[in-house]
Amino acid sequence: MTFLANLEPLKLAANSGSDPRILDGRAVAAALRDEVKLGVDILREERGVIPKLVVVLVGDDPASQIYVRHKVRGCEVVGIESERRILPHDISQDTLHQVLRDLSADPSVNGILLQLPLPDHLNDIIAVEQISSFKDVDGFHYKNLGRLMSWASVLEPCTPRGVMTLMKARGIEVRGARAVVVGRSMVVGRPMAQMLVRDDATVTVCHRHTRDLAEHVGQAEILIVATGVPELVKGDWIRPGAVVFDVGISRVDGRLVGDVEFDAALERVQAITPVPGGVGPMTVATLLENTLRATLKAHKLKIEYGALIEAGDFE
Amino acid sequence: MTFLANLEPLKLAANSGSDPRILDGRAVAAALRDEVKLGVDILREERGVIPKLVVVLVGDDPASQIYVRHKVRGCEVVGIESERRILPHDISQDTLHQVLRDLSADPSVNGILLQLPLPDHLNDIIAVEQISSFKDVDGFHYKNLGRLMSWASVLEPCTPRGVMTLMKARGIEVRGARAVVVGRSMVVGRPMAQMLVRDDATVTVCHRHTRDLAEHVGQAEILIVATGVPELVKGDWIRPGAVVFDVGISRVDGRLVGDVEFDAALERVQAITPVPGGVGPMTVATLLENTLRATLKAHKLKIEYGALIEAGDFE
Repeated sequence: MTFLANLEPLKLAANSGSDPRILDGRAVAAALRDEVKLGVDILREERGVIPKLVVVLVGDDPASQIYVRHKVRGCEVVGIESERRILPHDISQDTLHQVLRDLSADPSVNGILLQLPLPDHLNDIIAVEQISSFKDVDGFHYKNLGRLMSWASVLEPCTPRGVMTLMKARGIEVRGARAVVVGRSMVVGRPMAQMLVRDDATVTVCHRHTRDLAEHVGQAEILIVATGVPELVKGDWIRPGAVVFDVGISRVDGRLVGDVEFDAALERVQAITPVPGGVGPMTVATLLENTLRATLKAHKLKIEYGALIEAGDFE
Repeated sequence: MTFLANLEPLKLAANSGSDPRILDGRAVAAALRDEVKLGVDILREERGVIPKLVVVLVGDDPASQIYVRHKVRGCEVVGIESERRILPHDISQDTLHQVLRDLSADPSVNGILLQLPLPDHLNDIIAVEQISSFKDVDGFHYKNLGRLMSWASVLEPCTPRGVMTLMKARGIEVRGARAVVVGRSMVVGRPMAQMLVRDDATVTVCHRHTRDLAEHVGQAEILIVATGVPELVKGDWIRPGAVVFDVGISRVDGRLVGDVEFDAALERVQAITPVPGGVGPMTVATLLENTLRATLKAHKLKIEYGALIEAGDFE
């Protein structure tokens, strides 16, 4: 069965009528959700299959609860069934593993997301590996990271994948561009760099040990910042005409700020993602895309392509 | 059981008495082989175990035959048993998979190396995945690449791992250095960049789509070139005082040359690997190290540390 074939490329140039320098993640995420919903509708109508995502949350961290709520709400919008599995904050590593393995074995479950970070007494890397790599909709399982490194992946980490989709929707040329990634987390920085290299950018990875961060940032035509340090990147470091993706989100004096000084950066950029409303919505929409992909895989169906969703299959 | 604990750091500063600017891969490879041999000796004497490597060669490509011969000879030197398994050049993908799976299931085999490249009709990525990741001494299995990306690996691709060991032996400081990797192959460039980022370098990956390659090269304090294009990097591009690792080896007009213009580069560098005698010997010695690691793993033993071999375990 072929899904989403031959959709027209998105026309988002007008960018919802607002400042054209602002990369409106909400608008592109809505378009991506529409494509996912189309796939979910076909799957339900033609095969009687309803994709199901289980979000596993350990403890009651308030920030995690908010993230989980966004994800569950996203599922509702596109017709994916979702379930919240809340586990006690003092659960043992072994018991957590058993829960994840049981979900992995359950054929009614297509996607499993373990909300990170876990409480300090638990090892998140080993926990993630208990999830079937075919249901690992966060793309953090080492098998999926290895597939990403072999350029043969389908379930890719949601935030960097969402940034790539945003670039595609806005027609940003990656090939040959100088891209700088600030931050080297397993969740964002490292997979982001892989995707940019794969798409033919010249990529520099910076982090806490980088000397002359401002100089590196100043060379970036495409800049991705994912450090969690509020306004680490100063507006006047930015190369004039750069395209900037700000992944960070922190609350400072009651307002939400990113890792980039937004107002000062805006004066120099070709385009920049706002915080909030930039990368965040793309992350959630990509999770829904991954859940659709995982469901198609479980039913031996293949995704062809949409305007935003790319073709792909995985073993 | 503890292996190789508390060996003294190598004293290689005098570099065999030759030009101190030349990074003598043969000397460091010999030191690494000595450490491997020590481990193999202990394993044999205390446990009665002799590590075994099987090298699988499809067809009769002359260059591959030379590489395989180097590997088999290396095994002999350190006391690893080796076997060459030569398969017909027109073997089917399925039959090749069966051979690799049989070797993976054979408890007498600790390491399996599929000599690449394969003939054109075969898919090398899918073939490598038939090898047990615990016996994948080349480190190319997607599970091992994913482990590398999660910074939790032990069997790492031999050439980039060998370059890191050479840096360690010569006391080259990686943290905070500006490293530039030219080439993005799965065998060298991509894992090399991962290791350098993990060890706290600021890393730029360049490739055929990079504009201004000379400018990027000129910023490198540590430069790794792995493109297979003879003398692609000109000597006068090199930053004065840089440390250069030349992974390429090509035959041009009857002589072996690397990817860097050696004579011109030598005038500017702090140190550079020669071709031959630089990175190549480190690749083979690292294969032996990986075979020892895989054997220890199979027997549930743990490597602690030597002067060159690092501690590590893998699941």
